[in-house]
Parts: sequence; structure tokens; C-alpha cells
Amino acid sequence: MDFKYAKRMEYIKASEIREILKVAERPEYISFAGGLPAPELFPVEEIKEVCRIVLEEEGAKALQYSATEGYNPLRQWIAQRMNQRLGTSFDTENILITHGSQQALDLTGKVFLDEGDIVLCESPTYLAAISAFRAYGCEFVEVPTDDEGMIPEELDRILTNTKRVKLIYIIPDFQNPTGRTWSLERRKYLVEAATKHNVMIIEDNPYGELRFEGENLPSVKSFDQAGCVLCYGTFSKTFCPGYRIGWVAGEKSVIEKYVLVKQGTDLQSNTLAQREIAKYLELYDIDEHIAIIREVYKRRKTIMVQAMEKEFPDGVTFTRPQGGLFAWVELPANVNARDVLEKSLEKKVAFVPGGSFFPNGGKENTFRVNYSNMPEERIIEGIKCLGETLKQFV
Amino acid sequence: MDFKYAKRMEYIKASEIREILKVAERPEYISFAGGLPAPELFPVEEIKEVCRIVLEEEGAKALQYSATEGYNPLRQWIAQRMNQRLGTSFDTENILITHGSQQALDLTGKVFLDEGDIVLCESPTYLAAISAFRAYGCEFVEVPTDDEGMIPEELDRILTNTKRVKLIYIIPDFQNPTGRTWSLERRKYLVEAATKHNVMIIEDNPYGELRFEGENLPSVKSFDQAGCVLCYGTFSKTFCPGYRIGWVAGEKSVIEKYVLVKQGTDLQSNTLAQREIAKYLELYDIDEHIAIIREVYKRRKTIMVQAMEKEFPDGVTFTRPQGGLFAWVELPANVNARDVLEKSLEKKVAFVPGGSFFPNGGKENTFRVNYSNMPEERIIEGIKCLGETLKQFV
Repeated sequence: MDFKYAKRMEYIKASEIREILKVAERPEYISFAGGLPAPELFPVEEIKEVCRIVLEEEGAKALQYSATEGYNPLRQWIAQRMNQRLGTSFDTENILITHGSQQALDLTGKVFLDEGDIVLCESPTYLAAISAFRAYGCEFVEVPTDDEGMIPEELDRILTNTKRVKLIYIIPDFQNPTGRTWSLERRKYLVEAATKHNVMIIEDNPYGELRFEGENLPSVKSFDQAGCVLCYGTFSKTFCPGYRIGWVAGEKSVIEKYVLVKQGTDLQSNTLAQREIAKYLELYDIDEHIAIIREVYKRRKTIMVQAMEKEFPDGVTFTRPQGGLFAWVELPANVNARDVLEKSLEKKVAFVPGGSFFPNGGKENTFRVNYSNMPEERIIEGIKCLGETLKQFV
Repeated sequence: MDFKYAKRMEYIKASEIREILKVAERPEYISFAGGLPAPELFPVEEIKEVCRIVLEEEGAKALQYSATEGYNPLRQWIAQRMNQRLGTSFDTENILITHGSQQALDLTGKVFLDEGDIVLCESPTYLAAISAFRAYGCEFVEVPTDDEGMIPEELDRILTNTKRVKLIYIIPDFQNPTGRTWSLERRKYLVEAATKHNVMIIEDNPYGELRFEGENLPSVKSFDQAGCVLCYGTFSKTFCPGYRIGWVAGEKSVIEKYVLVKQGTDLQSNTLAQREIAKYLELYDIDEHIAIIREVYKRRKTIMVQAMEKEFPDGVTFTRPQGGLFAWVELPANVNARDVLEKSLEKKVAFVPGGSFFPNGGKENTFRVNYSNMPEERIIEGIKCLGETLKQFV
């Protein structure tokens, strides 16, 4: 059999992270490679109780097919939470429950992207957004980005000179992979520019609740008068990723399109998962739970930054995130992080080279480190070891 | 904001079934419209026990991210089950766990279909397969089909004269919507024809375990020497649809492509759901459970067929399925089932008009009835009422 795949399969490739993770998941490795939450913080006992209650009180319903839009009490909770935290004004009908926020990316591609359309993104940007959108044949233009977000003059120039820009994709809070957070001014400016050029903004916000320093900033959406911002959220970082429950929020007419598309894609998200999360939110205080996560990640971040300051050679710089799961390391221009990784894996320390976070190829002298998944002593040990490796290159 | 959607959104429309279901789900309706399993048969107590054990024994793992391919013990169970029941020779690596078999349809579109490609299907065919594939810009050619499957001469003619045929999509056992089952000879012939023309076959088999009369037939896949058959399966009809756990099985090199595509689509299926189902399969006898479902559906089917024989006017014909969830009714050529539905809904009896199961438009004098979701006395009452309505038209 000569398999005739679709053309898009030529540019759908194995994620580099995934291959590294396969090695790094062995227990003898110190892995800064993944983006895994700390599993020891999952509220297992509470979830056990919630499962029991949901199955006892509403078992048949929880195991049956249910609406594509999602479970209404959960949609309502999400709308209220976003309104409180992010200054939005959503209600139930503005929310579609998705199979993790990765599915929100895929559905966005299906709803908006034709072959040859352009997506603007931060430089660097989230790797799995690149692969989700690319399946719909789009191309990426990276907008030069600094510590406050996309640079306005560059954004203007690109929006003015580029045909067929359909979407601007950003993670404004504790970005993956850099850990950077957009300033208030840049958020406002982005909405103005997008409105002027009639382009949708995708505000992906998986880490916003995990701020451990500084003050919360209003969402990009909160400045949106025209309805041009769509928001993604997820329970993966504040609760448990295994449930695969996320959402997309936006104008009702747009969400209706997403519902149509989700119907043909997978009918609906897991009924039981939605009802269990909703029951947890009813019976327990998720803010208390998130406060614990924040505290642990804050300590891990602090310890990692201190270790990097101590162990990394001169000429290596890195971000100091105020929240989220990741920091970003930049090496001298002549050092390739893939070479560093090769040596580092010999010493059983893993991270992700930065090159693949640039959709058009880019800075090979960068890498991403995750601090949420390793206990403090292993962070210290791993960074020390990584520092020694770096000294062979810098 | 002037929303600029992708071109495909012009032909992604609300499913007619879904709109009917919204009305018919009210408790005062007798609904033959959906495809819901009988919720009173869900093994709620066993699932409660399984949830408790999974969270107690492996809570942190069950709530964490996991591999795109799926949970290995579950993949292994599926491979063995298929080998026993369907005469295949799969192992773990041949199986990808999907978010219901609807996702298998979507991933198939992504892996195989370019705009303008042709999918051959039975006439009529499963509605949600049409919407899943159509999102990738394909067109459908319906192969004339009788009670034994696609008609060989017609299949030959179409395969010989049609350019760009990529897939042949079929449900050989107790098809949705007709309830028909392919004969052994037609299964063999299909594989020969597809092999000769180098076209993939998608063997979708959600109902195969629910045979209540006659003998099991070998799967289409069991005749496949060339690796041209991909199989879909699901736990939705034999266990619970709310979990959204299905699978696709095929050649390893093809499954690897599916894994790549699933990674960008939604990362992975629900970890907890996969482990709970695997634990259920370990601790309980699913064959005993399926035997109960079969027994109940057999009775409901028998009662529905007897009621249709008694209540439907002359000139109305219908299938007598040997398994599955659906029967198919054909009215005289001049009667439109949509008109019948309008009258029938006034009397609070719902079904799905057949026209939308023909991708290129078709026999409006047909409709689908489901017998799995209503208790026996409501089937009798509903068919009687529907018979009275039909007498106004026939």
C-alpha cells in the first residue's frame, strides 16, 4: 500500500519537546524540559470525594452524551471567574468547554484559517500553537518582542505591510517559553491596533492565576470594545491536566461557530470530567488550592533563579518570571543550545532548546527551563550540573 | 468587528439532528431521534469503585499529562480484544486512543484529506462522518448500496472512473442510519477493490459488539493483506459515552501519523478516563455487561419492529436490524419525512428525517428510528402515535 497522505503532513513533524521528554521522564533524570505541574499538589482526596458524589447523585447523566457547548454550571463558573479576575463581561453563552486549551488552538485554526493566511505571534512563541495552526496551512510572522510584549512600531509596520493577517496570537501573562508578561500599555495598544486593522487577537492565558510576585494586570480582553479578542483558559495548571478541560471565551456569534466546529471534531468534552470539576468548585475553595500552588512554584522559581545566578557563567542571561512555570535562558550568540543539551543529557539533566519556539527558525542560542515539576533540591543539583556543562561552551 | 472566517465555515452547518434533539430531550417527548445508549444500564456502582481505586492507587499519575498515544494497558486490551473478535493481528503500537470515535473521523480528515479529494461512502451514511470529513474540503461520492453493502459493480465503476479517491468510509455492522450489515462476500470484495485501486478503507465499528441475532462476521480488516484498512472503535456503546474514549487501529506507520496530528489537536485523551476504563476491564467482566445491553436492546428492537409491522400503513417499509441501535424507514416516494416530523412533533414523537444522511442530498422519503434509549412501553406508544401520523401521509 502506497499511503497518500494530505499535503499538510509534510510540515506536521514530531515535536522536539516530545522526543526529549520521552528520555527525560525516566526517574534518574533531572528534567527542566516539560511543562508539567507538580503532581504532589493535585487534590487527590478531594477529587475522590467529588467522584463519589457525582456518580451517586447524577451517575447516569454524568456518563451519558451531553451538549457540545459544555456543562452549564461549569460554563457559568468560568464566566464569573473571568469577569472577576480579568475585567471581562462574559456569561454562560460566551463560553465553550474544550478538550484542554490545545483544542481551543485547533478549533481556532479550523474556524479562522485558510491556506496562506498569516498568524502574527510573539517571538518566540508557544511551540504547540505553531503546530496546531500550521495544520491549517497558515504562515507565521513573528513580531519583534521585548520584555513588555510586542514592540508597537514593529506591530504597526507588520500590520500595515502584511496581507491576509487573520490572527494575532499571544500569551500575555508569564509567557511560554519566556516567562515574560506584557505591560499595561502594550495590552491597550495591541487592542487598538487589532481593532484598526480588523484582526482577531487570541489571548491565551493558562498561567495567569499563578502570579507570585507583582500586581495582577487587566486582561487584553478587558480593553476590547469591538469584540476582536478571544480568550483561552484551562484547568490544567490550576487543577489537573489529566482531565483535559479548557475553554474558549468570546462573542456569542463567534462561539457559535466554534460549537459547530467542535461538534464535527469530537462531539463534546468528557461529561464526567466537566461535572467533577464543577462539583469540586462547588464544594471546595479553589483559591486556597491555587494559593498553595503559587507558594510552591514561587519557592522553586526563586531557588532556580538564585542557582542560575550562582552557577551559570558570565555571558549567560535569563528571565526572572513573576509567575507561571518557565524561565528563558540566552547564551552567547555563537553557542548552540542543542549542543549544550547533548552534553547535558549525558549528565542526566534535560531542558528544551529554544530554536523550535521560533516558527521561522531562530535563535539557537536559547533554551527554556521549567521549575514547577522538580523538588527544590533537584533544582539546585540540576542547575549546578547544567552550569558546569555551560562552562564548557561559554 | 467584521469576522473573517475560514472558507470551510460556509459549509459547516448546524446538524439537523442536534436541533431536533434539543426539542426531543424534554421528558414529555418520546424520542427515537438520538443515538443515546440506555443510561439505566451504565455500570454506575462499578465505576464508583473503579474511580476510588484508581485515585487511591495512582492518583497523581491519573491526573497528570500523559502520552499522546494513550494509556498502554488500555491500548493492549483493545488490541487483544480486536484480535479475538475481529480476526485482526494488532498489538499495542497499532492503537491510538482518541477522544471518542468522532475524533478518529476528524484525525482521519487531517491525515489524509486535501481540498478536492473524494471520499466514497455508503448511501446513506453516518451524518457526523460527513461533517467531520467535509471540514477538510473533500467531496463525497455515494456508492449505491443494498442490504448486503456497497454493490460491487457500482463500486468498480466509481473506483475506475473517479480521480482523487482517497478513502472509502463504511460501517459494516448494523450501520448508522440503516441498521444494515455487510455480507461476507462484499467485505472480501471491498478489500480486493481497495487494494487494487490503492485506496484506504475506514471500517467504523461502534456497534459490532451489539449483535443480538445471527452470527458474527469477520471484520473487513481481517481480509486486508496490504494494510489498507483502518479500524475505529469506541467504548461509547458498550460502556459509557460520557468518557469520550474511542480508538483508531491500523498499520504502525499510519498510526504514527495520527499520533503526530493528535498531538497538535489536543495533546492526548483524558488520563483519568483511560485509567478508569482500564481498571474496570481489569476488575469486572465487560462481556457480562455487554450481554445485558444486548438483551435489553434486542427486546426493544423486537418490540419496535412488531409495533411498526402493526401500526405503520401499507407502503411503508423498514429494516429489521440484527444488532446496533437503529432501524431505517422508507416511505412512498412522494412523502417527505420532514413534513411527517413536523406533524409528529406536535404529538411529541421525534425521529430524524433521512435526507441529511445523504451527503449530496437524497431520499427525503426516509427516516431513522433509534430503539436503544426508550423503555418498551414508550416504544409501543410512540410507534402507535407515529403510525397514526403516517396514515395522514400514506
